[in-house]
Amino acid sequence: MESSMAAAVEMPVTTVSAFDVSGRRPATTAGLVLNSPDPPSLREELVGVVGKAFRPRRTSGGDGGAGRCAWALTALQAVFPVLQWGRTYTLKSFRSDVMAGLTLASLGIPQSIGYANLAKLDPQYGLYTSVVPPLIYAVMGTSREIAIGPVAVVSLLLSSMVQKIVDPATDPVTYRTLVFTVTFLAGIFQVSFGLFRLGFLVDFLSHAAIVGFMGGAAIVIGLQQLKGLLGLSRFTNSTDVVSVAKAVFSALHDPWHPGNFFIGCSFLIFILATRFIGRRYKKLFWLSAISPLLSVVLSTAAVYATRADKHGVKIIREVHAGLNPSSVKQIQLNGPYTTECAKIAVICAVIALTEAIAVGRSFASIRGYKLDGNKEMIAMGCSNIAGSMSSCYVATGSFSRTAVNFSAGARSTVSNIVMAITVFIALELFMKLLYYTPMAVLASIILSALPGLIDIREAWSIWKVDKMDFLICLGAFIGVLFGSVEIGLGVALAISFAKIIIQSIRPQVEVLGRLQGTNIFCSVRQYPVACRTPAIQVIRIDTSFLCFINATFIKERIMEWVMAEVETSNEKARERVQSVVLDMSNVVNIDTSGLVGLEEIHQDLLSMGIQMAIAGPGWQAIQKMKLGHVVDRVGEEWIFLTVSEAVEGCLTAHKGSAMEC
Amino acid sequence: MESSMAAAVEMPVTTVSAFDVSGRRPATTAGLVLNSPDPPSLREELVGVVGKAFRPRRTSGGDGGAGRCAWALTALQAVFPVLQWGRTYTLKSFRSDVMAGLTLASLGIPQSIGYANLAKLDPQYGLYTSVVPPLIYAVMGTSREIAIGPVAVVSLLLSSMVQKIVDPATDPVTYRTLVFTVTFLAGIFQVSFGLFRLGFLVDFLSHAAIVGFMGGAAIVIGLQQLKGLLGLSRFTNSTDVVSVAKAVFSALHDPWHPGNFFIGCSFLIFILATRFIGRRYKKLFWLSAISPLLSVVLSTAAVYATRADKHGVKIIREVHAGLNPSSVKQIQLNGPYTTECAKIAVICAVIALTEAIAVGRSFASIRGYKLDGNKEMIAMGCSNIAGSMSSCYVATGSFSRTAVNFSAGARSTVSNIVMAITVFIALELFMKLLYYTPMAVLASIILSALPGLIDIREAWSIWKVDKMDFLICLGAFIGVLFGSVEIGLGVALAISFAKIIIQSIRPQVEVLGRLQGTNIFCSVRQYPVACRTPAIQVIRIDTSFLCFINATFIKERIMEWVMAEVETSNEKARERVQSVVLDMSNVVNIDTSGLVGLEEIHQDLLSMGIQMAIAGPGWQAIQKMKLGHVVDRVGEEWIFLTVSEAVEGCLTAHKGSAMEC
Repeated sequence: MESSMAAAVEMPVTTVSAFDVSGRRPATTAGLVLNSPDPPSLREELVGVVGKAFRPRRTSGGDGGAGRCAWALTALQAVFPVLQWGRTYTLKSFRSDVMAGLTLASLGIPQSIGYANLAKLDPQYGLYTSVVPPLIYAVMGTSREIAIGPVAVVSLLLSSMVQKIVDPATDPVTYRTLVFTVTFLAGIFQVSFGLFRLGFLVDFLSHAAIVGFMGGAAIVIGLQQLKGLLGLSRFTNSTDVVSVAKAVFSALHDPWHPGNFFIGCSFLIFILATRFIGRRYKKLFWLSAISPLLSVVLSTAAVYATRADKHGVKIIREVHAGLNPSSVKQIQLNGPYTTECAKIAVICAVIALTEAIAVGRSFASIRGYKLDGNKEMIAMGCSNIAGSMSSCYVATGSFSRTAVNFSAGARSTVSNIVMAITVFIALELFMKLLYYTPMAVLASIILSALPGLIDIREAWSIWKVDKMDFLICLGAFIGVLFGSVEIGLGVALAISFAKIIIQSIRPQVEVLGRLQGTNIFCSVRQYPVACRTPAIQVIRIDTSFLCFINATFIKERIMEWVMAEVETSNEKARERVQSVVLDMSNVVNIDTSGLVGLEEIHQDLLSMGIQMAIAGPGWQAIQKMKLGHVVDRVGEEWIFLTVSEAVEGCLTAHKGSAMEC
Repeated sequence: MESSMAAAVEMPVTTVSAFDVSGRRPATTAGLVLNSPDPPSLREELVGVVGKAFRPRRTSGGDGGAGRCAWALTALQAVFPVLQWGRTYTLKSFRSDVMAGLTLASLGIPQSIGYANLAKLDPQYGLYTSVVPPLIYAVMGTSREIAIGPVAVVSLLLSSMVQKIVDPATDPVTYRTLVFTVTFLAGIFQVSFGLFRLGFLVDFLSHAAIVGFMGGAAIVIGLQQLKGLLGLSRFTNSTDVVSVAKAVFSALHDPWHPGNFFIGCSFLIFILATRFIGRRYKKLFWLSAISPLLSVVLSTAAVYATRADKHGVKIIREVHAGLNPSSVKQIQLNGPYTTECAKIAVICAVIALTEAIAVGRSFASIRGYKLDGNKEMIAMGCSNIAGSMSSCYVATGSFSRTAVNFSAGARSTVSNIVMAITVFIALELFMKLLYYTPMAVLASIILSALPGLIDIREAWSIWKVDKMDFLICLGAFIGVLFGSVEIGLGVALAISFAKIIIQSIRPQVEVLGRLQGTNIFCSVRQYPVACRTPAIQVIRIDTSFLCFINATFIKERIMEWVMAEVETSNEKARERVQSVVLDMSNVVNIDTSGLVGLEEIHQDLLSMGIQMAIAGPGWQAIQKMKLGHVVDRVGEEWIFLTVSEAVEGCLTAHKGSAMEC
């Protein structure tokens, strides 16, 4: 112990004893910079990331109970949160959940039939999707308010992509096979995202991209409803505005039946009016929740009474009754289209998760609890895997139904179970009643759900805050509208990543000045009161990764600036540039090209008789500068911890030139 | 004037008068952060970049001469640097340049013939390429030592890519047409890179990628020489190791003539031996420079004397004599392959520029002058455009010949002119003498130039400094070796950009501590002597762009850390976490997703009863935080200029809890 202290006294620069305790700056902190411990190596970081992915998470339920049994319970609770909250579940909560579940079902049944229509499947498949996935989610999910089932955007996405492989009109059986395969694969992807902590993949779609994408998708979905609303027989399979406009225009030459349009419009107005009332008078919100079901009932009765189907009003006709049939045998993992299905599944999985997590998070934050993103993904994936085996297509959290569920006072996922049971009963008993339901009323139900997806106010605030983000938003919007859903997503992703790359290619190089009477150095552009010293130029490199893509640019900017300073200062000889301090506190990492760039700056400055000093390089950066012998060439005495020390070091070195400022 | 001063007194927070001049910290700097001027908008920045691209550069030659004539001279000098240095050119320099030019020609002629062979063109096309491009470069280039002409890597690149469109063996006329088209387009690309300041495109190939790529290309080129060295008639068109090994193996079953191998090996040993001598005794360096020409002369004489071509030694045979014919009519810009040609041209243009600028810069730094990258690109592009019209293929700066030119004492680009004239004379007079030159000696000349391209020492130092960079290097190397040249480049680019994206996805979040007795806060991992205060946690966000791709990650990391701290500190009640200071000095920019993330952190901390403070956000970041109303929600009083002020602010707010450390 004594010998190590003696060693510390002998090497004062590198150890804690280098500081005097009188409260002033340490005598030298350069040793501190150069002798910091090694940062974790690439291998260690990889091991850390992988290890973290497979280590089970701490659960707040495991309260130190001893033995293997407690561990198993904790693990089970981690997978099935129902085991956790189920023990404290009360009758009062159950009553609330039953009411919420029934309200949810009244909205969910007509929406499910409409979305199935959008997904180009028979109506019952939408209802199937409202039975199995909610049940699975109810025991595995961590959100209490989310309502699981078919949603508009995913239905559109699925049909617009799968119908490129097989036309649902000519070969519905193969189309369904592909849909179930996509659903299965999407579930697998979602589970693996959750298991391998790949949740960041969902982040690839930025906030702005989602706003633009959802807006575009809503308009596209709305345009698709023109078929039902106008009662057209011929329609286009494309989703872009131009194709739809052409299809509608050419259909106008055919004879058409205003009955469809009349039914659709009047019920759309009815639903929107009830929603307006529901928003105005909070107590009447149930009116907006049941108005779609009411519309279905009323319109069906009206059609049946007037036999309007004989006069051109399109009706649903046969809906297959009974519980979900098994579709295990329809999942084709060795089929000829498996690769295409996998591609579609990735997109569907990401979009479905994006929507579910966005919906879940926003309601969780209202209620003041936190969602576990990875668990949500696993729960969602398992729901879809189970769904794909029982004739369901991709389900996720629906925004409109979750809002209704929340308003109806749902306390837990039990409301999802109640809804699933209600839908199941409906499937068993009431399918025959849907025979005379007009297609136009389904279109009006879908249309009424769309305004929630178009967020003009958010787009406007994005425009105000960040023009590049607005470009991403606009790209996604226009891409979806005039190209296709995938093109919209592709455009948004491309602009987003280009933005990051551009940010890396062209980093700022800021000239720093001292705030009068302090040791604070800051950008003279950002803080015009900061004051530069002519003899010592302080330049900050504003990138966290000095690398091949920006090393030359940074070098040129710094040399340009120094050259300009040298040229002007030549006129006043006593203000000659003597030192350049590079503030590298923002530079976290550096690569070999960056090291070469630093050395070139040093060489160029030396050849002009200017000393270079480096202040506060990041952990990885200083490590690599040592390994790459940049520190040796620049000189250990020219590496400082802070800018003010570097400036003082330069001042001491070039005695006689006092600070003018 | 007086009124403005009065205003300044009335608003002390926002103006210079806020500082007391006693040398201590300003009373409050928060106003400084919040009232900084607006950063340049996207439009202003774009205008700046575009304006800069088209504004003529300052030239040091324009010494204030009045009138339009002086301006025109300056502009001319900017385009043709020869007008600048030509005026001070002396007879002594000319003598040095003539000697250097002749030495260069003696190396250049055999190399040009060999590289033409590598490019699958007739020998004279290599010589043509050594005539026109050097002449154009001589009047436009800014490097004094560089030797322009055909080089190994570009020859390989060109032939390996063009032969995928047309087989040079079966249709040499179309092949040549495509080669000239590619050369023309490559020139156009290079000129436009220079004009539009797109020089950063050359930076896309990082240092590590170039080391790996050059090493792989050298081995591939060496393997291609097995055809000449073994005198094989059948050979593969693929460049990868596996195909070449197969081709050699299958050729071994044919009868082969050891004469070729004997000639090739003996002259390879001769050239390498002279180079060794030249390195050992600097005065004999000319021996290594003329040894390739000497080898050609000796081997030709030997073959002619022994009539070895009758015994299976492959010879060049007919070489077309005379000056470059025009090839203007062979440039096809409307042909069926123009798109493919453009793709190849981009790759060739970038690789050629990369090599030329690397070569030029390294020698310029030895001589102590600076290259103008954009001018170099224009000069190189013009050389290639002129070359494509006179039967040349893509030319660039050759490393081996530039080294010889430098060693031979070249003072200016006049040595290139002398070389071009010498090659021209050779083309006119001596082509008949090449009839009996054995192919094996060409192979040995190319092989002797390859060791310079393989830089094992640099690869080793890359491995030591940066494992990720080594991965890029290895990717390029293996890609070229086992795939193709384009695959190698693609792999290197993909890993490089993935590296940047990964760096953005997973930024560090560092916990800061105070260096005892100072106001300096630094990472406790990097500087273990730094000391944390339990009540106030300081966390630094180590990314320059807080955006959609990392906002969630950063939020989770921060909240994880705070949760862990809260859990441990609950045991000791008096050390409860009261505030979290986010050091955002590294965050230069932020997007809307980043703003959402910041707000969520604020909300989450608030719900735990913890106050959040923000220190030193960057210029764009604070601007967007103001626009996005994050500042309003966090509270203006919780935004500080520096971490130490933020910590003090938090301490003052929660009186009673003293700093323990």
